[in-house]
Amino acid sequence: MKRVKLVVAYDGTDYHGWQVQPNGISIEEVLNKNLSELLGEKIEVIGASRTDAGVHSLGNVAVFDTNHRMPAEKISYAMNQRLPEDIVVVDSCEVKGDFHPRKCESRKTYEYRILNREFPDPTRRRDTHFCYRDLDVEKMRKAGSYLVGKHDFTSFCSSHAEVGLSKVRFLYSVSVKKEDDIIKIRLTGSGFLYNMVRIIAGTLMQVGMGDIEPEQMPIILARRDRVYAGPTAPAKGLTMIGIEYL
Amino acid sequence: MKRVKLVVAYDGTDYHGWQVQPNGISIEEVLNKNLSELLGEKIEVIGASRTDAGVHSLGNVAVFDTNHRMPAEKISYAMNQRLPEDIVVVDSCEVKGDFHPRKCESRKTYEYRILNREFPDPTRRRDTHFCYRDLDVEKMRKAGSYLVGKHDFTSFCSSHAEVGLSKVRFLYSVSVKKEDDIIKIRLTGSGFLYNMVRIIAGTLMQVGMGDIEPEQMPIILARRDRVYAGPTAPAKGLTMIGIEYL
Repeated sequence: MKRVKLVVAYDGTDYHGWQVQPNGISIEEVLNKNLSELLGEKIEVIGASRTDAGVHSLGNVAVFDTNHRMPAEKISYAMNQRLPEDIVVVDSCEVKGDFHPRKCESRKTYEYRILNREFPDPTRRRDTHFCYRDLDVEKMRKAGSYLVGKHDFTSFCSSHAEVGLSKVRFLYSVSVKKEDDIIKIRLTGSGFLYNMVRIIAGTLMQVGMGDIEPEQMPIILARRDRVYAGPTAPAKGLTMIGIEYL
Repeated sequence: MKRVKLVVAYDGTDYHGWQVQPNGISIEEVLNKNLSELLGEKIEVIGASRTDAGVHSLGNVAVFDTNHRMPAEKISYAMNQRLPEDIVVVDSCEVKGDFHPRKCESRKTYEYRILNREFPDPTRRRDTHFCYRDLDVEKMRKAGSYLVGKHDFTSFCSSHAEVGLSKVRFLYSVSVKKEDDIIKIRLTGSGFLYNMVRIIAGTLMQVGMGDIEPEQMPIILARRDRVYAGPTAPAKGLTMIGIEYL
């Protein structure tokens, strides 16, 4: 028996998110089905980031145990022969039997992309959120800098999240930069609350429009109440970039 | 009666190219239908670049005449209310009555994108061509430099192109650069032959793999025979970037 870690990239547009659920096809379900067929065993992966419907990934992590003798390194190639073209296993390797993608300490990186120009770009409509109002990137950058460090992010967490658990998280970095017409908000942290990146992105957009001043960010954090932050930005702009295990 | 110029962006993945044709839906057809409905007249656009099936655009040009009193500048907004999300009119303006998108002198720019890494990226599968063999960008750049200037590009033209017409074209610039995992080949020229950009891209890929030396490019040009150049690279990697009228 060995434990295998997969690094999984996907275009989330046509999926109902990572997690298996009754009303639509999920990334996890497609992986389970194809791994089970490939290895001749019933496989159920454990995912690191349970991304929402429409969210993309370049490096989500999934783990499973198998008795099959196929070397872990070959599984990525064998899986890519079977998977639909919007899911790709970009790496597979053996890990220790006690490795758990959510419980082991890690740094996760997400990127939120905003296409900021007068008209939409049809070639980037699937992985960017379009905003025609001119956004002030400098203000967004300043606002983002207030989020770096250890904070209670209750204000930036969906009110549908589980009650009672700690909402304290550590953000290592928040960067905001514009490349051509696309503003990229990139966050690296020890962990993220439900919808946290999308709520931060929605709030930074309001800062960019001038509706919130950068200096209000510490106040919004201190309120510990979801109603003070901006709206949850649409899922399609969000990409899980990767996870580094420490 | 006025002549209106549209600048049109599209994701070509789900279209059978620009030109109206019997066996599938085309960009031109969707524009004609929506313009005719919007303006209450039968409209038939004239396109600048008749891109192939699967080729994308950020700035193709189409022209038509109308008697409708709607200001030309408003037509882009009105059209974007009607068009499917994979076609966007990014600009509309009135032009002189003798303006013709193919006959007037212009500089056209195309970009061919190659995702060059070990595994495909599902989020860029629609607008990049995937190549897992490591490509030598420096050699590709050198090879591309031999194509700049006025040449007979018969070797880089589909053998299905019309016979008898001049195959001499002028390339203002050829650039090859790698950004993250994507190699971008960008060509600006006075005009392009049928499949010319895709054949140049396919040839530069062979150069990048070491199958053709950069110094062979002048010889391939001089042969004036399609068989000496590399294969036609797939349509999905090609994007028409824009057209500047002189």
